[in-house]
Amino acid sequence: MTSRNPHAARRAELLRHMAGIGVDGLLVSNRRNIFYLSAFRGEDSLLLVRRGRSQLITDGRFSEQAEQETRGIEIVVRKKGLMATAAATARRGKVATLGIEAEALTVAQAEDLRAALGRTTLKPVRGLVQRQRMVKDAAELAVIRRAVAITQRAFLDTLPHIRPGMTEMEVAHILDRTMIELGAEGPAFETIVAAGERGSLPHARPTERRIRSGEAILFDWGARLEGYCADLTRLAFVDRIPPIYRRIYPLVLTAQRRAVAQVRAGRKTGEVDAVARGYLKAHRHGKDFRHSLGHGLGLDVHEAPSLARGVETTLRAGMVVTVEPGIYLPGRAGVRIEDLLLVTRKGHASLTSLPRSIEAFLIRS
Amino acid sequence: MTSRNPHAARRAELLRHMAGIGVDGLLVSNRRNIFYLSAFRGEDSLLLVRRGRSQLITDGRFSEQAEQETRGIEIVVRKKGLMATAAATARRGKVATLGIEAEALTVAQAEDLRAALGRTTLKPVRGLVQRQRMVKDAAELAVIRRAVAITQRAFLDTLPHIRPGMTEMEVAHILDRTMIELGAEGPAFETIVAAGERGSLPHARPTERRIRSGEAILFDWGARLEGYCADLTRLAFVDRIPPIYRRIYPLVLTAQRRAVAQVRAGRKTGEVDAVARGYLKAHRHGKDFRHSLGHGLGLDVHEAPSLARGVETTLRAGMVVTVEPGIYLPGRAGVRIEDLLLVTRKGHASLTSLPRSIEAFLIRS
Repeated sequence: MTSRNPHAARRAELLRHMAGIGVDGLLVSNRRNIFYLSAFRGEDSLLLVRRGRSQLITDGRFSEQAEQETRGIEIVVRKKGLMATAAATARRGKVATLGIEAEALTVAQAEDLRAALGRTTLKPVRGLVQRQRMVKDAAELAVIRRAVAITQRAFLDTLPHIRPGMTEMEVAHILDRTMIELGAEGPAFETIVAAGERGSLPHARPTERRIRSGEAILFDWGARLEGYCADLTRLAFVDRIPPIYRRIYPLVLTAQRRAVAQVRAGRKTGEVDAVARGYLKAHRHGKDFRHSLGHGLGLDVHEAPSLARGVETTLRAGMVVTVEPGIYLPGRAGVRIEDLLLVTRKGHASLTSLPRSIEAFLIRS
Repeated sequence: MTSRNPHAARRAELLRHMAGIGVDGLLVSNRRNIFYLSAFRGEDSLLLVRRGRSQLITDGRFSEQAEQETRGIEIVVRKKGLMATAAATARRGKVATLGIEAEALTVAQAEDLRAALGRTTLKPVRGLVQRQRMVKDAAELAVIRRAVAITQRAFLDTLPHIRPGMTEMEVAHILDRTMIELGAEGPAFETIVAAGERGSLPHARPTERRIRSGEAILFDWGARLEGYCADLTRLAFVDRIPPIYRRIYPLVLTAQRRAVAQVRAGRKTGEVDAVARGYLKAHRHGKDFRHSLGHGLGLDVHEAPSLARGVETTLRAGMVVTVEPGIYLPGRAGVRIEDLLLVTRKGHASLTSLPRSIEAFLIRS
C-alpha cells in the first residue's frame, strides 16, 4: 500500500481542473495556494504546476527550505528576475497556455511575464485553486481538528484568570499567549475581547476598556496551526447575566441551531443564511444581524464558500464552514455565537464542542 | 498670506508629471501614495487624481474618517464594487486616458476596471508617485525629524536597562515599548537586536539568545510617526570591546565617513556606494559587505532611491537616504553603522546625531 503525498494528490486534481479550462501550465503566486499545493512556506516564490514535474521558482534565501519542505517538485533557484525566470521555466517546459492567478499578480508582474514569454499564451484565471481548497482532504481536517482543540482549551484555561478591573487587552493577551503555549503558531486573526456594550461592534479590537462585574464579554478567537485556522465565538458573563442578554441570547442561539440543522451537502449556502436571518427577522431583529451568516475556513480565516444572502454556492461534503448569527444593539449589547462545521453527505459534524447555553461561562469574581 | 495644504501641492505637482506622460487621470491604489496625496489613512479605497477636483472612492466604513482627514477632495461613498465605482467616477470626470499604478493593482482589478470603463483608455504606469516621493517637502521633513528624535531618545533610554543574561527579545521589547511611550505609532520595522556573532546576519530577528558580558550588541531600529519612518544602526558593547571589533569597526566607520562626504545633489547614488565599497575592498573586506550602501526613506522604510552598485539615480536636494556600510564575518562578528542624511544643494545635513565612536555605547554591567 502506498501512502500518497497529499500535495501531489492536490496537484493532480488541479491538473484536471486546468485541463477543463484549456490551461497546460498554471503559475501559482498566491502564497497560501503555493503552500496548499507544495507545502512550501517561504516568500517571494512562484509554483509552476504542469503535467510531468512541477517547479518551484525561488532564490538563494529559500532554496534549502524549499528542498526540505517539498516533495516531487523541482526547485529552480533564480539568478534573474522572478518573472523572467518563471517565463523561461514555462518555455523550457513547453507550456502552450500559461494560466496566471489574476487576483494574486500585479499588472506590472503580468507585463514582465508577458514580455519574457515568447509564443506562450497568457491566460488570467480566478479562484481556481481557491475553489479546490473549499473541500478539505483528510490531512487538512486532521490539522483543523487540532487547531480547534487548542482554541477551545486556551479559552477554558483563560477564563479562571479573568477578574473585574482587567482590560480587554490584558484578557486578549492571556488568551493569545495560552494558544501559543499550547502549540499554536499564534492567533489566526486579531483576537476580539469586547466587554459590555462593545460587543455590539462586530469587529471590535481589544482596548484599555476595563471589564466590570455584571457584564458580558464577547470572545471571537482562534488558533493558527501549521497554516490552518480555527474560529469560534462565545460569550462569558461576570457574576451575573444582564436582562437584555436573557432576551436576545436565546434568539441568537435558536437562529444558530436552525441554520446548523440545514447544513448538509446539496444545500445552497444562501438558503442556510436565509433560515437564520428569517428567524431573527420574525423576532424583529433582522436589521440587528448586520453581517453574513458564515464563511469557509482553512488556510485563510475567511475563504470560499460564503454563507450569505443570495449566494448560490452548493455545500459539498468536506467543506468546513462557520455558522455565526448575531444581534447587535449599538451602545447596549451584542451577541454572536459561532461554531465550526464539517459538511458531510447526510448532514454535518460539529468540529467545535464548547457548550452554548447562556450559563456555560459564568465567571464568579 | 495663505498657508498651503501640502497635500494639494503634491497633487498639483503630480498633475504636471501626469501631463508629461499623456495621462489626465491617475487612479492611485498604493496605500502610502494615497496617504501622501490626500492624508487619508483608511483601507480599501482609491484616489482619482485629475484636474479640477480629485475624488476619494471609499465605503461606508471609512466615509467619516475620509471627511475628517482630507481637504479639497470629494468623497465618493461607493454602493457598487470598488473598480466599477472608480470607472464610473472617471467617466463622470470625462477622463480620456486613465493611468493605473501597475505595481499596486492586480490583473483582476485591472480587468474589472477595463470592463467598466467604456471609451476611456487604460494606461499602466510605474513608480510615478514614488519618484515624486523621493524629494521630501517641509511638512515631511518636520515629521521625519521628530521620528528620528524619538528613535534616538528611545535608544539612550533603553541602554541603562541592559544587563548580561537578558535575551535579545527582551531588549528589543524594551526599545519598542520606549518608542511607543515617547509617542511613536510603533517600530517602523521589526527591531534588530543581535548579540555577539549574530550581528553577522544583516536581517537577524531577535531571539531568546542571552546577552553576555564582553559582547557586542547590534541595534537596527526606528520609530514610525504619523506614517513616516526613521532607521538607525549602532553597536553597543557590554563591559569590553572584543579585539575583532577593534579591527573592523574603524574600517566600517571610515567607509561610512567617506561615503557620507560624497552625498550631495548631482551625485549618482551608485558613485556613493562605490566609495564605501572601494574602501572596504582595499582593506580586503569587499566580500564581507553583502548589501547595498543605503536607501531612501519616508513613508516606506525602503523606498527610492537605492544607493547600490551601478544605480544611476542622481541625488537631489530634499532626498532623505540612509548610509549604512557593514562588515559581516559569519559566526564571528558583524558591524554596521547607519545614519540618515538629508541631501542639500551643496552637500548634506545629518538627520541623526548619535555618536559613532566605538566607545560611545559601552555598557557597564
